[in-house]
Amino acid sequence: MTDVALKPALSLTSALAAAAADIEKALDRLLPPAIGPEARLMEAMRYASLSGGKRLRPFLVLEAAGIFDVQRACAIRAATAVECVHCYSLVHDDLPAMDDDDLRRGKPTVHKAFDEATAVLAGDALLTFAFELLAAPETHDDPRVRLELVALLAQASGPHGMVGGQMADLAAESAEADFDLGAITRMQKMKTGALIQAAAEAGAILGKASQEARAALRAYAHDLGLAFQIADDLLDVEGRIEDTGKAVAKDAARGKATFVSILGVERARAQAERLVDQAIAHLALFGSRADRLSALARYVIERKS
Amino acid sequence: MTDVALKPALSLTSALAAAAADIEKALDRLLPPAIGPEARLMEAMRYASLSGGKRLRPFLVLEAAGIFDVQRACAIRAATAVECVHCYSLVHDDLPAMDDDDLRRGKPTVHKAFDEATAVLAGDALLTFAFELLAAPETHDDPRVRLELVALLAQASGPHGMVGGQMADLAAESAEADFDLGAITRMQKMKTGALIQAAAEAGAILGKASQEARAALRAYAHDLGLAFQIADDLLDVEGRIEDTGKAVAKDAARGKATFVSILGVERARAQAERLVDQAIAHLALFGSRADRLSALARYVIERKS
Repeated sequence: MTDVALKPALSLTSALAAAAADIEKALDRLLPPAIGPEARLMEAMRYASLSGGKRLRPFLVLEAAGIFDVQRACAIRAATAVECVHCYSLVHDDLPAMDDDDLRRGKPTVHKAFDEATAVLAGDALLTFAFELLAAPETHDDPRVRLELVALLAQASGPHGMVGGQMADLAAESAEADFDLGAITRMQKMKTGALIQAAAEAGAILGKASQEARAALRAYAHDLGLAFQIADDLLDVEGRIEDTGKAVAKDAARGKATFVSILGVERARAQAERLVDQAIAHLALFGSRADRLSALARYVIERKS
Repeated sequence: MTDVALKPALSLTSALAAAAADIEKALDRLLPPAIGPEARLMEAMRYASLSGGKRLRPFLVLEAAGIFDVQRACAIRAATAVECVHCYSLVHDDLPAMDDDDLRRGKPTVHKAFDEATAVLAGDALLTFAFELLAAPETHDDPRVRLELVALLAQASGPHGMVGGQMADLAAESAEADFDLGAITRMQKMKTGALIQAAAEAGAILGKASQEARAALRAYAHDLGLAFQIADDLLDVEGRIEDTGKAVAKDAARGKATFVSILGVERARAQAERLVDQAIAHLALFGSRADRLSALARYVIERKS
């Protein structure tokens, strides 16, 4: 590869880092301070959300909003709300009654660092706080825009979106359900896809984009979300194949159906690549303004973690 | 007592029953049907919310909205959203990691009837669904009104409201915290008071009431909420005093500070009565339109369950 070919990747890397830094700062500024007898709640909210991560969803909000020249401060608030919803879902997913994970990003999960009751409440509080953030005048001067963001986020994370997908995922783990490719795809679209889609669409809403532009971003994020999930499944399996001693192959160990267990490694990888091409094709109408979103789509299937 | 004196109480009883029936019907109609691999989630949402209860909060929305001649259908949607938030809080409060209750209203709690993971997710889904309901056009034709309802409910149930109060309550149970009357009052205002206040205020928002009227309803609900909680504490202790063999005196058994443990029965009762008088005084500007809200205030400290 030449330097020129590397350029978009480099600018993606720095844009990702800049977005992550902005979101970290915004969370720190916007989340309630830890005061009073309920301080433990705020500490747990901060612990759950200020612990880094790729900040993929906020990045999508910021990049999509950037296409329409949305004020960065507004986009950051909306992006922060989306990230709060993502973080809440991780806190609850990690609970002993759910995935029962002790570690996340190398740190003890919230119920380990605090306790289960605090983890339940901190998740609840992050979810609620996301709607409070979106509804506040600082997010956008047009109340219709704020209301649309609220509706979008509620739908994406509600029973027909993320929470429904999480329930379907639990059903997939149980012996009763027999998940084929269609069922897995549907489940993943709900569990992880809906919020990824909402993130990109939030940028379009903030920018009062045309229905056409909004649909294009939605279609892009739809394909991106599925590619992202297939890449996750591939990483899970490749960890096992390389047999590093650290790899967990958690899904395979649980006997859980994934894209890879159904399609096999080769077809899964081909499918992810096809989805990425398709995602990028949806961005055509934005020209070079969407270069980083294109680069992001390539990145999600090339990443190593 | 004469028939005349009994009349407001009678009409309160039938209004409460009518509101409860309307909310039950609305929940059944509005909650998503149980379909697909995630059907268990919807079943649990329905189980958690269609199990009766006093429906005090929806009643407050409906009665407050009634003062301003709000369309009943709009008020019912907003009232249903408030009840969804209340039901979510009960599902999570009952979890083993929280209050660890096996029964609610004589029925197995959600994590007993289903399982813990489903209870966590059903609570999450009910909370999210409340915001989806409020944001939808059917709730009010003015998007500003819907947005105000979203902001109100998010604040009332977030870290500075219900969830914060729940965390403070857990702190009160632990040995570390020493709760005096001021701290208990503050905690209860957050844990139960904030949502009760939001319910009454939602009626004013739906009716585009003046700031004066809105403040009056907020002040009424503030006093009502505290009186309601003191009455709860009294019921807990009186169960023990009567020694029926069924009484639990749960708070006392846990060594938990309550209004009654700090004030004693007599002063607590006097305080509740003072709060009810005060609550009713705030309704003066509404004249006979608020008769049932006055009757409700009397009712909360006279009830036997």
